[in-house]
Amino acid sequence: MPTDPDLLSLNAFDPARGAAADPGTAALLARRQANLGPVSVLFYEEPLHIVRAEDVWLEARDGRRYLDVYNNVASVGHCHPKVVAAIAAQAATLNVHTRYLNEPTEAYLERLKATLPAALSNLALTCSGSEANDLALRLARTATGRQGIIVTAAAYHGNTSAVSEISPSAFKQGRPPAHVRIVPAPDARHYGTDLAGGFAASVWQAIGELDEAGFGCAAFIADSIFSSDGVHADPPGFLQAAAAVVRSAGALYIADEVQPGFARTGDAFWGFERHGIAPDIVTMGKPMGNGFPMAGLAARPEVMAPYFAEFGYFNTFGGNPVAAAAGLAVLDVLREQGLQQNAAETGRYLRRKLEALQASHPSIGTVRGAGLFLGVALCRDDDPDPGAARRVINGLRQRGVLIGACGRHGEVLKIRPPLTFKPEHADELVDALAEALTD
Amino acid sequence: MPTDPDLLSLNAFDPARGAAADPGTAALLARRQANLGPVSVLFYEEPLHIVRAEDVWLEARDGRRYLDVYNNVASVGHCHPKVVAAIAAQAATLNVHTRYLNEPTEAYLERLKATLPAALSNLALTCSGSEANDLALRLARTATGRQGIIVTAAAYHGNTSAVSEISPSAFKQGRPPAHVRIVPAPDARHYGTDLAGGFAASVWQAIGELDEAGFGCAAFIADSIFSSDGVHADPPGFLQAAAAVVRSAGALYIADEVQPGFARTGDAFWGFERHGIAPDIVTMGKPMGNGFPMAGLAARPEVMAPYFAEFGYFNTFGGNPVAAAAGLAVLDVLREQGLQQNAAETGRYLRRKLEALQASHPSIGTVRGAGLFLGVALCRDDDPDPGAARRVINGLRQRGVLIGACGRHGEVLKIRPPLTFKPEHADELVDALAEALTD
Repeated sequence: MPTDPDLLSLNAFDPARGAAADPGTAALLARRQANLGPVSVLFYEEPLHIVRAEDVWLEARDGRRYLDVYNNVASVGHCHPKVVAAIAAQAATLNVHTRYLNEPTEAYLERLKATLPAALSNLALTCSGSEANDLALRLARTATGRQGIIVTAAAYHGNTSAVSEISPSAFKQGRPPAHVRIVPAPDARHYGTDLAGGFAASVWQAIGELDEAGFGCAAFIADSIFSSDGVHADPPGFLQAAAAVVRSAGALYIADEVQPGFARTGDAFWGFERHGIAPDIVTMGKPMGNGFPMAGLAARPEVMAPYFAEFGYFNTFGGNPVAAAAGLAVLDVLREQGLQQNAAETGRYLRRKLEALQASHPSIGTVRGAGLFLGVALCRDDDPDPGAARRVINGLRQRGVLIGACGRHGEVLKIRPPLTFKPEHADELVDALAEALTD
Repeated sequence: MPTDPDLLSLNAFDPARGAAADPGTAALLARRQANLGPVSVLFYEEPLHIVRAEDVWLEARDGRRYLDVYNNVASVGHCHPKVVAAIAAQAATLNVHTRYLNEPTEAYLERLKATLPAALSNLALTCSGSEANDLALRLARTATGRQGIIVTAAAYHGNTSAVSEISPSAFKQGRPPAHVRIVPAPDARHYGTDLAGGFAASVWQAIGELDEAGFGCAAFIADSIFSSDGVHADPPGFLQAAAAVVRSAGALYIADEVQPGFARTGDAFWGFERHGIAPDIVTMGKPMGNGFPMAGLAARPEVMAPYFAEFGYFNTFGGNPVAAAAGLAVLDVLREQGLQQNAAETGRYLRRKLEALQASHPSIGTVRGAGLFLGVALCRDDDPDPGAARRVINGLRQRGVLIGACGRHGEVLKIRPPLTFKPEHADELVDALAEALTD
């Protein structure tokens, strides 16, 4: 049984093990491998060739529709007409960097700030969550004068040099450098009944180790729903103790909201809000433009200032008016369609159905998460069973449902659909999952 | 006289020195400063508020049109209808990551590969030139097992942690770390008549220093037209000697084509082609999607493979089908409108007119560059005169023409318009420049 796979290879296509069934897809696959070589990352034993998408549906080349229970970028639904129209209209009017003033960018910044704690009054807009986290590390290191960073065991914070270092799940060989300390994810399997206290103690110990090694602790950074660690959301508030430990050490708390942000948890607009904590820096990305490449961060002015006094920073595409138009449309749609409430309600409905399925399927160890970000851990004799996860993911794909895997061992089914997901979609997912688990 | 300003503050708005003249722009400026704080980078003593753009024209809030001689992102012209239509159509059809196969992405990769040396057969698509250069450094370091990087004195290669280190022009305080060695830019003022040999000798010496310090040299990275160093393009071929020195040391040559790529130099599609060199890695960005955030790199498979064997790399937005559609439209427009030829012809026309202006204005030290990327160095008693550059840039803005500055001292007028720039636009620029220089 494989343990600790690198996150990015979970459910990855392996040319040595799989192939495309139909000749058209096989031909496209061959072109892909010639074009990207080792850069290519594809899902499924038999890769999917997608030609169009709408709302919660992806349509393959053979005309088959797949229920999308995986893609959190198209958060308000694939190809949402309001977002598409906003992008098209602004791209036809003005698309230029922010060294000139433009109205859409400031309007977006203000709408975004209104969702955030008032203290985080300075924003920076980037192209990707990776760029946002990369900048957040520099803000923290410059503001504290320290180098050390604490992350969880299967954390993923992006793909630049600096954030790859703090992404243990991206290492196929080796491990993060000495100035990066790893704490076990906030999993009840590890910490037992006092999750809050145990997790805070782990963070406290890591701070001590960084001090002793001479790095000091600049920041603790955590995805507020611990997606790649296997989805750990409950109980709300458990992060408060860890945040207090970080603060008392003079380090910064960076909330990586690339995954839980923008209403996905149903309980709140931001994942950190569910925990009642006030981060020093909030980073955001994926769902921000429903697919238009945009991301950013928010921080207190005094956290921003020291870095920008030392370095000139400019992001050519970041915060351009087309990104702003896409971002404004996403915020409008979230509100107009009541998608945070839908995430809460449909999430609750889906969770109940998954818990009911658990009663008849002992391979389901736990069902956990918040809103429309749920994790279903598969076990065998109480041990993580990534082989089962892989089989179920491919079995669901055969049944027209797309999900992914996460967790340090790759045993957790990752359920993370567009926020327009409805109870009938949940029914379809759970019916297919029951069949795939039985197979 | 200021010397060695950080590049990003050249022509930057300084709230202590300037202000917005009209109340509407002043209000937007106040919002901007509240939203971005120290992250805000604005041009001009009196910031511009832009509301729309078309081809080579930017239109301000007060209805005034400005001739855009600065913005190389909107390379085929602002808001080009063909690019806008391609983005709108694909965004309405499918916008998803590349872990599923899709046809537009492979079609784009193949069209892009057709412009590149056949040996560079593996591509990686990212969101920004910064991400591309950041990845290029890791490819080079993993492939060579060395850490050192050589850059030019006022180089700028992007904004991530790793590429900020190799961007001397981004440092407001301090200087690059010890594993980054700086060589003087290929400026005849420094190297005299044997530019090729002198520059190669500088690179050779830096390689020796990196070896001696125990870092070894992983790569020499250069913008093929040395934009931020003040635009150094001639004579074509002068980079061959430096490239040979890099190769003989077992290091990699990284051509940063974010600025000169995509036909801007007129002589060739890529800046390195003008020099007849074969880079190990080519990075690209800004003009690639005419404003749609996209970038990438190309390398030989054996340069790619070692890094990807060690790390999982995935770029969520990179290479998505909307980026591919934008990129395909840009390649189509470049060809259909003959923009490489226009860059050559209009560039030649403009250069002749600038040289004629030089005869009557002794403050113009040199006129240099290639195609539609020209630099005009302003001097006083043969010394660089950044104060004059600043005055001229603001004087041109008052006359409805937008340009920028570059060079280690900030004394070089940077002329870099959309590639649809025509002789009548060149006339307008040169007439305004004559007035601004006389003032």
